[in-house]
Amino acid sequence: MLFTNEHRALSESVKKFVATQINPYVDEWEKEGIFPAHELFKKMGDKGFLGIAKPEQFGGMGLDWSYNLAFCEAMGEVNGGSIPMAVGVQTDMATPALAKQGSDALREEFLVPAIAGDYVACIGVSEPGAGSDVASIRTHARKDGDDYIINGGKMWITNGTQADFMCLLANTGDGPVHKNKSLIVLPLKSKGVTIARKLDKLGMRASDTAEIWFEDVRVPQRYRIGEEGMGFIYQMQQFQEERLWGAACNLRYMDIAVQEVITYTRDRQAFGKSLLDNQVVHFRLAELQTEIEALRSMVYRAVEQMINGEDVTYLASMAKLKTGRLCREVADSCLQYYGGMGFMNETPITRMYRDTRLTSIGGGADEVMLGIIAKFMGTFPDKR
Amino acid sequence: MLFTNEHRALSESVKKFVATQINPYVDEWEKEGIFPAHELFKKMGDKGFLGIAKPEQFGGMGLDWSYNLAFCEAMGEVNGGSIPMAVGVQTDMATPALAKQGSDALREEFLVPAIAGDYVACIGVSEPGAGSDVASIRTHARKDGDDYIINGGKMWITNGTQADFMCLLANTGDGPVHKNKSLIVLPLKSKGVTIARKLDKLGMRASDTAEIWFEDVRVPQRYRIGEEGMGFIYQMQQFQEERLWGAACNLRYMDIAVQEVITYTRDRQAFGKSLLDNQVVHFRLAELQTEIEALRSMVYRAVEQMINGEDVTYLASMAKLKTGRLCREVADSCLQYYGGMGFMNETPITRMYRDTRLTSIGGGADEVMLGIIAKFMGTFPDKR
Amino acid sequence: MLFTNEHRALSESVKKFVATQINPYVDEWEKEGIFPAHELFKKMGDKGFLGIAKPEQFGGMGLDWSYNLAFCEAMGEVNGGSIPMAVGVQTDMATPALAKQGSDALREEFLVPAIAGDYVACIGVSEPGAGSDVASIRTHARKDGDDYIINGGKMWITNGTQADFMCLLANTGDGPVHKNKSLIVLPLKSKGVTIARKLDKLGMRASDTAEIWFEDVRVPQRYRIGEEGMGFIYQMQQFQEERLWGAACNLRYMDIAVQEVITYTRDRQAFGKSLLDNQVVHFRLAELQTEIEALRSMVYRAVEQMINGEDVTYLASMAKLKTGRLCREVADSCLQYYGGMGFMNETPITRMYRDTRLTSIGGGADEVMLGIIAKFMGTFPDKR
Amino acid sequence: MLFTNEHRALSESVKKFVATQINPYVDEWEKEGIFPAHELFKKMGDKGFLGIAKPEQFGGMGLDWSYNLAFCEAMGEVNGGSIPMAVGVQTDMATPALAKQGSDALREEFLVPAIAGDYVACIGVSEPGAGSDVASIRTHARKDGDDYIINGGKMWITNGTQADFMCLLANTGDGPVHKNKSLIVLPLKSKGVTIARKLDKLGMRASDTAEIWFEDVRVPQRYRIGEEGMGFIYQMQQFQEERLWGAACNLRYMDIAVQEVITYTRDRQAFGKSLLDNQVVHFRLAELQTEIEALRSMVYRAVEQMINGEDVTYLASMAKLKTGRLCREVADSCLQYYGGMGFMNETPITRMYRDTRLTSIGGGADEVMLGIIAKFMGTFPDKR
Repeated sequence: MLFTNEHRALSESVKKFVATQINPYVDEWEKEGIFPAHELFKKMGDKGFLGIAKPEQFGGMGLDWSYNLAFCEAMGEVNGGSIPMAVGVQTDMATPALAKQGSDALREEFLVPAIAGDYVACIGVSEPGAGSDVASIRTHARKDGDDYIINGGKMWITNGTQADFMCLLANTGDGPVHKNKSLIVLPLKSKGVTIARKLDKLGMRASDTAEIWFEDVRVPQRYRIGEEGMGFIYQMQQFQEERLWGAACNLRYMDIAVQEVITYTRDRQAFGKSLLDNQVVHFRLAELQTEIEALRSMVYRAVEQMINGEDVTYLASMAKLKTGRLCREVADSCLQYYGGMGFMNETPITRMYRDTRLTSIGGGADEVMLGIIAKFMGTFPDKR
Repeated sequence: MLFTNEHRALSESVKKFVATQINPYVDEWEKEGIFPAHELFKKMGDKGFLGIAKPEQFGGMGLDWSYNLAFCEAMGEVNGGSIPMAVGVQTDMATPALAKQGSDALREEFLVPAIAGDYVACIGVSEPGAGSDVASIRTHARKDGDDYIINGGKMWITNGTQADFMCLLANTGDGPVHKNKSLIVLPLKSKGVTIARKLDKLGMRASDTAEIWFEDVRVPQRYRIGEEGMGFIYQMQQFQEERLWGAACNLRYMDIAVQEVITYTRDRQAFGKSLLDNQVVHFRLAELQTEIEALRSMVYRAVEQMINGEDVTYLASMAKLKTGRLCREVADSCLQYYGGMGFMNETPITRMYRDTRLTSIGGGADEVMLGIIAKFMGTFPDKR
Repeated sequence: MLFTNEHRALSESVKKFVATQINPYVDEWEKEGIFPAHELFKKMGDKGFLGIAKPEQFGGMGLDWSYNLAFCEAMGEVNGGSIPMAVGVQTDMATPALAKQGSDALREEFLVPAIAGDYVACIGVSEPGAGSDVASIRTHARKDGDDYIINGGKMWITNGTQADFMCLLANTGDGPVHKNKSLIVLPLKSKGVTIARKLDKLGMRASDTAEIWFEDVRVPQRYRIGEEGMGFIYQMQQFQEERLWGAACNLRYMDIAVQEVITYTRDRQAFGKSLLDNQVVHFRLAELQTEIEALRSMVYRAVEQMINGEDVTYLASMAKLKTGRLCREVADSCLQYYGGMGFMNETPITRMYRDTRLTSIGGGADEVMLGIIAKFMGTFPDKR
Repeated sequence: MLFTNEHRALSESVKKFVATQINPYVDEWEKEGIFPAHELFKKMGDKGFLGIAKPEQFGGMGLDWSYNLAFCEAMGEVNGGSIPMAVGVQTDMATPALAKQGSDALREEFLVPAIAGDYVACIGVSEPGAGSDVASIRTHARKDGDDYIINGGKMWITNGTQADFMCLLANTGDGPVHKNKSLIVLPLKSKGVTIARKLDKLGMRASDTAEIWFEDVRVPQRYRIGEEGMGFIYQMQQFQEERLWGAACNLRYMDIAVQEVITYTRDRQAFGKSLLDNQVVHFRLAELQTEIEALRSMVYRAVEQMINGEDVTYLASMAKLKTGRLCREVADSCLQYYGGMGFMNETPITRMYRDTRLTSIGGGADEVMLGIIAKFMGTFPDKR
């Protein structure tokens, strides 16, 4: 019901792009620990892929989120989580607030090139001492004339060594932690910005992740997105797209993992029959596929709600939680059936095993999702 | 997207009926090991509840299955699984094939009174030696003039001691096991029918379950539903509604279990705080609710497919599988948080713990669902 | 290493007793909701079974706990959890403190007949508002001359309608909750004792469970066990035996569940082979047996520690936790493979499914065990 | 009961060796993808660590397996699985059959230098098309005069690029697959041996793993271990030590993972309290430690049986199975509580997450263990 022929056409176009412009290069990018973001994003921008649900006024396609869903699912065909994540940062993490709450001038200056693929964006929320607990960040922006002067640092910044600008969350006041923050567009070539180091990660190795420090970085106040003090709220809204995106991108990635292990185990003989003919193998895969379909159904339902203008925090948080857990289960179970080959890096499942482990941690850890769900259920303790 | 105001009105009407006509009596029916099927079904028939998705020509409401879904969800407010199951047998297990493949005369004679609540129906598939393996049944119907002469027996027959007729699956030929069966309407007052015993069950105790034997039972061949030899196929189709029904009925039952344990644990103090304020409690309940919503989403998606005329075997089998497993998990986890009261029969969760254990067994056990799903995935071994 | 020929002889003797004096009657006792405790305990007392690890001076066998372990394992052959639980209350819950800390006079008066099987004992710790949180009980004993005057009530009292005396935990002072309690032997025929009601339980139905109220019940202070104010400490020690007992009694009960489902599934054919030949069945049973053996190993190790005079709280709490969870898993999984017969009360697994559900609740719920383990690990928060 | 002061002294000595001779270099070896086997083994040989349970006649310490257990547990302090695995191959995989069934001359020539640390050994069982299904190997040794001429290849050979000799399993006849094999000591510098490639693995990266091919490799028949045709049997016996070793080595590795995450989460604040103070964290860690202790108890019990001369296949297979699964659970759960740092390679848990994934695959995959256990339970189907 959700998908029309237009969706299917978009999906085919994305899959073709993945097959020709991404998958042939991923192994190399993994080895290098980085992918050429400007080059790839430009190609994607030319196709319109970076602005599917963004306003036409700023170069987007102006479509509803169901098209973004079709895009995300198709991106699941990428062999590895790094590129979908990097793209997701560009389209659904660093720019939704800019697109919704940013001034026209700000959108002209930053959103237009982000959608065109000329600028690479990153999102600056997490800090060394504040991962899931967003309210406790310490980076602050002090007013000085028409500018902010920014000090502090951000951690685990995807696209961080290549990005042109960051959508930064910083404390702009001293009030209560949910009302003293603002989102600010911070050009990363500004003076005082240090890309401290590229992080060495368990997975997502084709994606660069940076630790970035700010020392008296000066940006004009007109780079603030929307109202002052509303940053925490905007970011929480922005997280909804991030979470749905995270769920949607992994659906097909999991499908493929199941399909590939089916192909592998069908061909391998042990104890006189194909591995796949073992009941524990094909039954287990049926269980996994059942859960994947349940998650897919949940994502579709959340997107329907989103299109209808409803708040999807509840379902999106559930979908994010389930995605993180299911990815780990799918990767771990599928890897097992490859036997010794499951431990060889030449087998794609090892990359999935490493890459998807991030899903339960990034974008709000599982435990943060449980807290949000509990709040919606009215069961979260008043004070802790 | 699925539900309109008409659905909501139906739902409210059903909930009111449950609150006034069912729940006040369930404890008594549980104690007696039976409920007054004719009396209750007549009341439900008067409301139109027994023919929601049945043709108007035979007294039904002629609505699509989304209304049946609304009905099923609302029936989840019944305190215990027995009555929803008994009703489901009437509406979605014993009569779908009759409604679709039965001749007009047969539908006049049996479907009309079943929809009106004048007749109680049961389904006769399982046998002592053939539960989930439907193809291996032994009950057979031999032609004699215009009649069939039926011999054999059926086991675990819900509504069996009260039913007016059975939708019987019997071997009517000697061919391959998937092509030698027919569905036959068998009036249970026929000569040669013996209600062997009422079974003493772990749960579902307000619902009577019978073992029924046939010795030279004579029924006219015109009581056959549809074509001869098509019984296995019809029954497999009929199972789809049964499986969706089974999933739909348990959604709200699980919601309520979670809600009730929230209420209980909020009020109980231990170690200086409410039980609910324990993180393991409210996080666990959030996990359970997440899975319930995933299942709900899957059921909705399957119903959308059904309404669109697609085959829903794949999703319906997945939903059935997940329902059986999730019910056990929800009941077991919720029971735990009642502490000692969770072991007392006065606490409704104990009934849920016993009743829902059937869900993974009846209507095709979990292992049968896994086999069906594997067939759709192309992973089921060709021969075993 | 743990077991000698003497252990094996004891075990054989117990198994024979179970086969002839218990199992033939359990179904009847289940139906009646009670078993004849005085009659059965007298027979067991005559055999010496009720005082295996109790001092010879008071009629016990004076053996170390490894013999009690052999006894417990053998008691696992009882068809149902009720009788082992009732016996365990007599031997390992209501009398260990009496045997260790009681005065000689008190032991003459109560321990000797308890070991002989003349007296039935019960333990009075839980209260309606204080199950696992023992420190928060409200029953209190006020001094009056040489007596205590006791007021309050106790809940979930196994053997409660038949017991001659209770080992009561009551507040005897106003100090801190861990230092204001005493254990007192309370004869249940005392004036002011009311057996409020026999509780209707999910399982353990051959065992009577009572709610008992005290109104100005007068008992001499010399009925106090050991020192005043030490009741909480004594009870925590007494719990260790209870927990090891609970683990030990369920080992063989689980073995038998697995063995019985093997026998059943070997005989049943479906889809052209025996149910047991399904890989998911025999692999699942192998997983369950693996966990049972892991638990058994843990219990043996704890008993070795106990015999060596070490504190076994850590391992005993772990064993109790694992027992509760594993019993649920074994019962639930085995029940599944009986198919429809798994839902019939005539199949013993249904009793196990209901009875063993108590194991994660009684004697300190799973969550209490986790708290104790966390304390030993040094991870329990200082204040909550 | 199992451990004496001698065991504890050995343990301390090993831990000191690990702290000074292994852990300071592991990160470097990981980076290089290999460790200096000859250098390290020589140091260990000097300490006597490589022959703890080997006969004194050939340079071993002649102790029972409980000392090997103490050694294995202490080796769990190594930061990563590679070195314990490489050592285990030397002591408990490639040499037990040689030590038991080898001729004196063969033991002089190969066992003595292996125990001394002068020779590095590897075990050659797995083949590209025969991982867990050992009976189906294709490498064969044909007699020619006094020699065997060997052709074929072996896969996943730990220590394979550095080893001096391989304990090779090869077909030496055409009979039934369990009776046509022999174990042969194959010096790897022999003509016709090709170290085809060093494998690029998900984990265990400080350990070299090779694919090795044999083309008309000539070795004298006196290099055969024990009787011709007994190779499969010897190897199955040899697997028992391997499996116990695998379990024993991971016990302390898991302990440390739990301890380290406790330290980390105690120090990290989020949402106003330490991460460790979250009930889901300290309860989860208590659950994990419970399972670790259950596994430890099982390993101890198996070792007691082994010392008593009993067949430990049943318990050892169970312990191997549980080790593989528990390692994955411990690593995955602990990694989660590090948050973003859990995804950084600088955090040791990422290595454990990658390294221990092998445990469910190597040395007989989980599914092979389940098959063995099922055979002992009498539930394995006669023919498949």
